[in-house]
Amino acid sequence: MLKAGEFGLIGQIKENFSPLYRKAIGIGDDAAIIENNLLVTTDALVDGVHFLSDKINFEDLGYKSFAVNISDIAAMGGYPLYAFLTLGISKAIQDKQIREFLKGAQKIREKFKFDLLGGDTVSSGTFFISITMIGKPFHKPLTRSGAKAGDFIYMSGKSGDSAIGLEMIKRQMKHPVENKAYFLMRHYLPEPRVTLIQYLVKHFRINSCIDVSDGLLGDLSHIAEMSKTGFSLDADKIPISREEIGAFFSKNESYFKKLAFSGGEDYELLFTSPKKIDEKKVLKETGVFITEIGKITDGNKNIFSQGKKINWKSIKKGFSHF
Amino acid sequence: MLKAGEFGLIGQIKENFSPLYRKAIGIGDDAAIIENNLLVTTDALVDGVHFLSDKINFEDLGYKSFAVNISDIAAMGGYPLYAFLTLGISKAIQDKQIREFLKGAQKIREKFKFDLLGGDTVSSGTFFISITMIGKPFHKPLTRSGAKAGDFIYMSGKSGDSAIGLEMIKRQMKHPVENKAYFLMRHYLPEPRVTLIQYLVKHFRINSCIDVSDGLLGDLSHIAEMSKTGFSLDADKIPISREEIGAFFSKNESYFKKLAFSGGEDYELLFTSPKKIDEKKVLKETGVFITEIGKITDGNKNIFSQGKKINWKSIKKGFSHF
Repeated sequence: MLKAGEFGLIGQIKENFSPLYRKAIGIGDDAAIIENNLLVTTDALVDGVHFLSDKINFEDLGYKSFAVNISDIAAMGGYPLYAFLTLGISKAIQDKQIREFLKGAQKIREKFKFDLLGGDTVSSGTFFISITMIGKPFHKPLTRSGAKAGDFIYMSGKSGDSAIGLEMIKRQMKHPVENKAYFLMRHYLPEPRVTLIQYLVKHFRINSCIDVSDGLLGDLSHIAEMSKTGFSLDADKIPISREEIGAFFSKNESYFKKLAFSGGEDYELLFTSPKKIDEKKVLKETGVFITEIGKITDGNKNIFSQGKKINWKSIKKGFSHF
Repeated sequence: MLKAGEFGLIGQIKENFSPLYRKAIGIGDDAAIIENNLLVTTDALVDGVHFLSDKINFEDLGYKSFAVNISDIAAMGGYPLYAFLTLGISKAIQDKQIREFLKGAQKIREKFKFDLLGGDTVSSGTFFISITMIGKPFHKPLTRSGAKAGDFIYMSGKSGDSAIGLEMIKRQMKHPVENKAYFLMRHYLPEPRVTLIQYLVKHFRINSCIDVSDGLLGDLSHIAEMSKTGFSLDADKIPISREEIGAFFSKNESYFKKLAFSGGEDYELLFTSPKKIDEKKVLKETGVFITEIGKITDGNKNIFSQGKKINWKSIKKGFSHF
C-alpha cells in the first residue's frame, strides 16, 4: 500500500528528476512543452478505477480515452497531431470489445484529424489504456501559470455534469435527475474544446487555461497556485445543468452545487482573460457556451454567494485521483 | 480472451488508423518519426508478465523500464531527450519500492541525460509502468526498411544472454551456467547502445537497424520483411557467451544455440552496412563488441551452419510478447 498519495508521488518524481538538462516545460501543466513548441501529454485509464469493462460501451471508451488526452492539448491552446496507444489486455477482454474500442478511436481521430503512430500491446492482469498525445498550439502555448490579478475567470459548458453521470453509474445518486441520458453522455463522451480554444486565442488574450478534470474548485486552485494569485469566485454564476436536472434541482440545490464545485472529469476549459469576452458571440461562432464566473485577485482564494463569503471548508475540494 | 495475437492486434490498429493525415513514419519501426525528425517510442512493462514485483529489485526495474525505451531510440540512430512516465500503482506496492524505482530511473537519466517532463499516476489492480520516450537522431533516422542486398549483417554484444537470465529466474534452466550473476545482470540491466550507434553513424553507412527484443531470428526477419530482402545468416558466427556459460556449453550446444537464435530482450543492436566494419576498432572506440553474422540477399531467408543450410523450422522463431 502506497502511503504517499497522488500528489505526493508526483512531488517525489519531480524532485528526483530536477533540474532539467534542457529548456522545456515539464511536470505541473496539462502538457509538457518541448522543442518546436510541441505539446506532449499522457493519460491512462484503468479498468475498475476509471471505468468498469463489464459495464462500459467500448466504442465510448475508445472515444473517451483519446478525448481526455486531446482535452489536455486543448487546455494548452493547441490541437492534436500524433497519438501513441498502449493497451494492457486482460483475459476478460474479447476481440469484439477491441474492435469497438478501435471504432470509437477511429471516430474521434476523424473528428480531430490526428494520426496514431505507434504504441505497445501487452498482456496484463488488469485491462488498461495508456495514451500519449502530441499536439501543437494554434498560437502559443497556454499554461496554468499566466493568470494576472484583474483577469476575468471563464469556464466552458456546465459544471458537475460528468459527476452526476458517474454517481448514476455507481448507483450513488442521492437525488434523481430528469434527463439521465444527457448526464451519461457527458460522463462517457466528453468533448475536447479544441474549436473553442482556437477561436479564443485568435480573438482574445487568454492568460491562463486548464481543463477541468479534478473539479472546478481544485482546478481553479491549480491556476491560482501556479500563477501566485488569489481568486474571487462567484458561486451563483457557476453554470449548472438545471434544465436537465429538472424538478429536483430546487429541492436539492446544495447537493447539485457540491457536484458542480468539486465533481471531476467535465473536461471543460477554465481560463482567464484580462478583458470581458462576448459570451453570446463565442456561442454563435463555436457552438460552445462560456460563462464568466469570477475574477483573479491579488489576495486569497475566496468564494462568494449572494454577496457573502462562503466558508471554503464547507465545500469538498477537488478530488485526488488516488 | 483475445483470439487475435499481438501481431493481429497491431494489424487491426494499423488498419483502423490508415491512411495518415500527415507525413510521418508510424507503426512498424522501433520508434515513430514526427516533425523536426523527432523519434517517439512507447513501451510498457507489466507485473506478472514482464517482471515479478515480489522478486525484482525495484532499482533495476526503474533502470530497465527506461532502458528498453532508450534502446528503441538507439535503434533509430538516436539519443533520448524527453521521457514521460505513467505508473499504475497496485495495492501491493510500497513507498520504499517506488523510491528505489525512482533511484534506478535517476541513475539511467544521469547516464543518458534525458529529462522527465510528465506522465500520469493512477491506481490499478495490476502494477504497470508505461513510458514514452522522445529522442533525436545523431545523423538521420535509421529504419528497419533500409537494408539492401549485399549489406553485411552485424549485431552488438552476445545473443541469448537475457534469455539465459530469464530461464534462471523462472527456474526453467535445463542446463546450468557458471557465471550466474553475469546472465542475471544482462537480463535485468540491458544497456542501450547509444554510444555505439553514435560512433557507427558517424563513421559508416548504416542502411538498417533494429534492437533485438523479440529474438535474433525474429528481429532479423523484421528487417528482411520491411526491406523486402532475404538474408543469409551464418549460425556459427552468432556470438554466444561461451566463457560465461562455461563447461556446460559444449555438452549442450543446441540448447544454448536455440536461446541465442530466439531468446528475446537482449536489447543489442542488429544492423546492416554495405561495407565491412572494423570490429576491433569499434570495440576500442566504443567499448562495445560487434560481430558480422551474415549478409542481406535478394533471395530467401536462409541460415547456414558449417556451409550447410539449416532447416528453418528446426529453430524456434522469435517469441511473440503475448
